[in-house]
Amino acid sequence: MPQSDIVTAALVVIGEEILSGRTADENISYIAAYLTRAGITLREVRVVPDLEEEIADAVNALRGRFTYVFTTGGIGPTHDDVTTDAIAKALGVGVVVDPDAVAAMRKHFSEAELTPVRLRMARVPEGATLVGNAISRAPGYRIGNVIVMAGVPRIMQVMLDAVLPSLDKGRPILTRSVRVDAPEGDVAPPLAALQGAHPDVQIGSYPFFEQQRLGTYIVLRASDPEGLQSAYDSLWTIIVENGFAALRSEDE
Amino acid sequence: MPQSDIVTAALVVIGEEILSGRTADENISYIAAYLTRAGITLREVRVVPDLEEEIADAVNALRGRFTYVFTTGGIGPTHDDVTTDAIAKALGVGVVVDPDAVAAMRKHFSEAELTPVRLRMARVPEGATLVGNAISRAPGYRIGNVIVMAGVPRIMQVMLDAVLPSLDKGRPILTRSVRVDAPEGDVAPPLAALQGAHPDVQIGSYPFFEQQRLGTYIVLRASDPEGLQSAYDSLWTIIVENGFAALRSEDE
Repeated sequence: MPQSDIVTAALVVIGEEILSGRTADENISYIAAYLTRAGITLREVRVVPDLEEEIADAVNALRGRFTYVFTTGGIGPTHDDVTTDAIAKALGVGVVVDPDAVAAMRKHFSEAELTPVRLRMARVPEGATLVGNAISRAPGYRIGNVIVMAGVPRIMQVMLDAVLPSLDKGRPILTRSVRVDAPEGDVAPPLAALQGAHPDVQIGSYPFFEQQRLGTYIVLRASDPEGLQSAYDSLWTIIVENGFAALRSEDE
Repeated sequence: MPQSDIVTAALVVIGEEILSGRTADENISYIAAYLTRAGITLREVRVVPDLEEEIADAVNALRGRFTYVFTTGGIGPTHDDVTTDAIAKALGVGVVVDPDAVAAMRKHFSEAELTPVRLRMARVPEGATLVGNAISRAPGYRIGNVIVMAGVPRIMQVMLDAVLPSLDKGRPILTRSVRVDAPEGDVAPPLAALQGAHPDVQIGSYPFFEQQRLGTYIVLRASDPEGLQSAYDSLWTIIVENGFAALRSEDE
């Protein structure tokens, strides 16, 4: 597909709790599927600790390579929430208190609740635009091509919905997949030939191990529906010719 | 804790299927918890597509910074399994067919099944040492400080068990955690003071959103049991003094 049809993204997950194994991340798979459906191709994910320099390094390494960089986590009010300072450092700008963020927090909190610590959440890098969030009023924001979101899945999801309309999208990638009850070693040779015959379709094979047996999921991905259908038809010819037991996947 | 007590790791997850959102990764949280228990601190994770150059770049960026780099995925027999070539490229060595890997596969496969495609799985970067795997006989391996494992969770787990005895370990990190039914904004000020008083204990706070309410998990981590207990006692004093509803976490 032509280059202009491709919109790419990277994701930086900020979270000591993921790296220590305390919490299993839920955001990566949610964001990956969400962006894919929207026509944005997620190309890299990094999980980094809650340290200013490591966050800044990751954002700077990625923001020049991809259309968008999303981050999750580290925008709350506590001492280990250093994402905003890290993003400001990465972009070489200062940190300001955003009046709209303060106004939004005033609707949610009483004057007594609006402590200096809570007001920390209204700090954003200079030049940032707020992203709506109806739950906690701790704002996400966008600055340049970097989109900064909360780490709590439910709140992150609201922010993603809020920011999506303003983003560029490419042609959505269509997928078809088949489950074959044969090990990858049996499937590999005809699959390599299929890939050779359909260079515009990305053909992936993913082994699985279930009930003491190895099998293979075969996934075809393309933005052109006709090219995808043609490769899919050829795949079924291969399956029949080789006598593989196979099942159309129900997940699309 | 003294520098010599710290053994660090990074993880490179190789998988287009994770980035497309088709498959939710299970390996990150498993490996994170496993290494933490073993006294190895996971410091960064990267998820990259099945592309030789991107895998090689990630491994090269990480192997100088951490004690170990683990990889998962891309060592099967199909056309999109390019991890071995990528690792060889990253380390500047050639790829060889490992006679021990071929011998192991001979025990598992008949001569007819031992096709050239299957024998691809016996290819390793020159200088690699095999890591045992009783399930699929597609070997994982270690070369320098890079440990290459399968992507299928059950097989990866067997490989991790096989390689662990040969790895250096630091002092295990101990953790205690408390669930507080108050938003982070209320918890933040005393928590910052607690962190100031206990610099050797890493104090993390993780907001959650449950039944329409925001709450906070507070996690204390340290390698020294006495320092940890002292910070934990102080945390409970804070909880009582502030009248927070709190619950000892059951997960440790």
